[in-house]
Amino acid sequence: MRNPLADKVVEIKPSGIRKFFDIVNDMKDSNVISLGVGEPDFDTPWHIRDEGIYSLEKGKTFYTSNAGLMELRQEICNYLKRRQGVDYDPRTEVLVTVGGSEAIDIGLRAMVNPGDEVIIPQPSYVSYEPCAILADAAPVIIRLKAENEFRLTAGELEEAITDKTKVLILPFPNNPTGAIMERRDLEEIAEVIIRHDIFVISDEIYSELTYKGRHVSITEIPGMQERTILINGFSKSYAMTGWRLGYACGPREIIGQMTKIHQFAIMCAPTMSQYAAVDALKNGDEDIDKMRVAYNQRRRFLMNAFKEMGLECFEPYGAFYVFPSIKEFGMTSDEFAARFLNEEKVAAVPGNAFGDSGEGYLRISYAYSLEKLKLAMKRMGDFIERLRKEQGR
Amino acid sequence: MRNPLADKVVEIKPSGIRKFFDIVNDMKDSNVISLGVGEPDFDTPWHIRDEGIYSLEKGKTFYTSNAGLMELRQEICNYLKRRQGVDYDPRTEVLVTVGGSEAIDIGLRAMVNPGDEVIIPQPSYVSYEPCAILADAAPVIIRLKAENEFRLTAGELEEAITDKTKVLILPFPNNPTGAIMERRDLEEIAEVIIRHDIFVISDEIYSELTYKGRHVSITEIPGMQERTILINGFSKSYAMTGWRLGYACGPREIIGQMTKIHQFAIMCAPTMSQYAAVDALKNGDEDIDKMRVAYNQRRRFLMNAFKEMGLECFEPYGAFYVFPSIKEFGMTSDEFAARFLNEEKVAAVPGNAFGDSGEGYLRISYAYSLEKLKLAMKRMGDFIERLRKEQGR
Repeated sequence: MRNPLADKVVEIKPSGIRKFFDIVNDMKDSNVISLGVGEPDFDTPWHIRDEGIYSLEKGKTFYTSNAGLMELRQEICNYLKRRQGVDYDPRTEVLVTVGGSEAIDIGLRAMVNPGDEVIIPQPSYVSYEPCAILADAAPVIIRLKAENEFRLTAGELEEAITDKTKVLILPFPNNPTGAIMERRDLEEIAEVIIRHDIFVISDEIYSELTYKGRHVSITEIPGMQERTILINGFSKSYAMTGWRLGYACGPREIIGQMTKIHQFAIMCAPTMSQYAAVDALKNGDEDIDKMRVAYNQRRRFLMNAFKEMGLECFEPYGAFYVFPSIKEFGMTSDEFAARFLNEEKVAAVPGNAFGDSGEGYLRISYAYSLEKLKLAMKRMGDFIERLRKEQGR
Repeated sequence: MRNPLADKVVEIKPSGIRKFFDIVNDMKDSNVISLGVGEPDFDTPWHIRDEGIYSLEKGKTFYTSNAGLMELRQEICNYLKRRQGVDYDPRTEVLVTVGGSEAIDIGLRAMVNPGDEVIIPQPSYVSYEPCAILADAAPVIIRLKAENEFRLTAGELEEAITDKTKVLILPFPNNPTGAIMERRDLEEIAEVIIRHDIFVISDEIYSELTYKGRHVSITEIPGMQERTILINGFSKSYAMTGWRLGYACGPREIIGQMTKIHQFAIMCAPTMSQYAAVDALKNGDEDIDKMRVAYNQRRRFLMNAFKEMGLECFEPYGAFYVFPSIKEFGMTSDEFAARFLNEEKVAAVPGNAFGDSGEGYLRISYAYSLEKLKLAMKRMGDFIERLRKEQGR
């Protein structure tokens, strides 16, 4: 039988996160503390679940319109107006998707011609590069630097742009570094983006988890809304990962084409999730605040713990990750993570799973209880001390 | 600003079904009877909804593994063994997807290199051709014939195959014609498929709705399981459209690549839907039987009504559609459907929405109550009589 597979799909490497978790799962050791998962440890708030339950009780088990319930699209617009001050038309500029993930995939599919370059700052979420390759784009990687607190600078962007550049993926607040882009940072890159006439897919899925003032969306910068697909969703802010619900907002012509792909490839997002999400947007601001306070407490605990260990880590102000450097130990991220797991039973994802520029770092998620984090930091302290002794320091 | 859009996406025509429903919606006439939707009129059976509710109450709101809950994959294998007599390994040969729709899209993405030909028999579901184009394939259309009861024949397939053929999409039981393929039909095309060493995406989403013996899957024909992606789901058989849940089963190497795309583009199917689906497969056989009996009663009613009107219609034994010919009136399907809607307030989809070979036909869905169908057939009888008089017959 001949080869059934598409070449470009075979070439895509499986996710480095997944590879690491396969190792963790193979250990089957109940003593292992995982700090690895990119998923809130909170259950979905009860009133939101209750709305999902109510929709099932009422038999709302049918398709919605392809773009999503009009009521949900309206609430998404209200929310973005309230939080970011940007206006979208719910009829033509909003598409409800299966998580932020689908929005990234179909955003690229709608915009990229074969060979177009898509700029991806790394370290960043593992799906951008594969989705770009699947869309026939040529990914161009920008290696973000610790000295810039892993922000994207105008200079770095300028240098990466060529005649073939079509789209910049803007992944802030960032997974895995926790880096954010503030207004001035965004203004500086916006000038470059507009001058070169390129488009932006802004993945703002962690925007509600910002610990330094209000999250600023690049769509707020003059001239940017008309060339940006803003992606957000319910997974992180409302602890709704399993509901698979996100959205994309942008210029009518792009959202129209994304909706066409969505209609053929997905049909519509899950109906009960859409009803629940209406409630989340209407009545969930307090839940976000409560969870953010909890995350922030954990974040500060970790930063203090690293300081006490003498471990280098820039202070991240977004998402629920910290990204300490392990370069002083002269090991690769994979080696460090493997020994940390084997010797201390703590799982954290090697930084290079998020791009080569993550080599020498470790992603530690704080979507875990303070109790777990305390135990994990005790073990990390022991581990680091042992490593330094080994190395005669 | 330059053009933000991908060329191939712009070229894809929007769905003809959708176009027709835009007209229906614009009428805003409460007297309109729609026979247009491809969705069961039943609510999801209560015990299945109850399982979804229970999973939400218990806080099962987190991601599942990318390929889907292992328990669900195991139940899918049990189900296919029980109903079709085929064996799949739940660990490596099953992927849980967002409806059958996603499975079609990523099946093509996993298998097609640019320029590979994908054979699509039409009339058929509106998403095959766009998904093939999005995957960079060259779609090759086979025009199925009324004289063959819209089955695919070995001769038609042989004629469509070239050196570039990679995949045949096999859409039976068929939407919109209601045609089925019986064992002998499948054996005949299997010989051609194996001799030319091509692969099959078999969309069996309507397999539970068969009114002439047991549905036969092409995977049951010797030599076919190893070159077929079998697609099914919960939307039609269990009236679970809004839950967005389907699955693909096939050879390990193809399912592995599909899982990779799914992992990056979707992450996982909705969690509460997966828990509910486990219950559907375990305890839902009776629900399927009950709904099939109801559909079959409606189907026989429609066939009788057409006979009384003297309207030509082959007897379809699958899905929940009939596909009468309106050729005697010398109008296009669009003209007929538009006049039928305007003059008699009945909406049915023009056959050409499912491919050029559907021209001269009308798709009538019987996922509607017998009461509605009776009223609609009364109106259809009046309409046809008037048309014949106009034409001096």
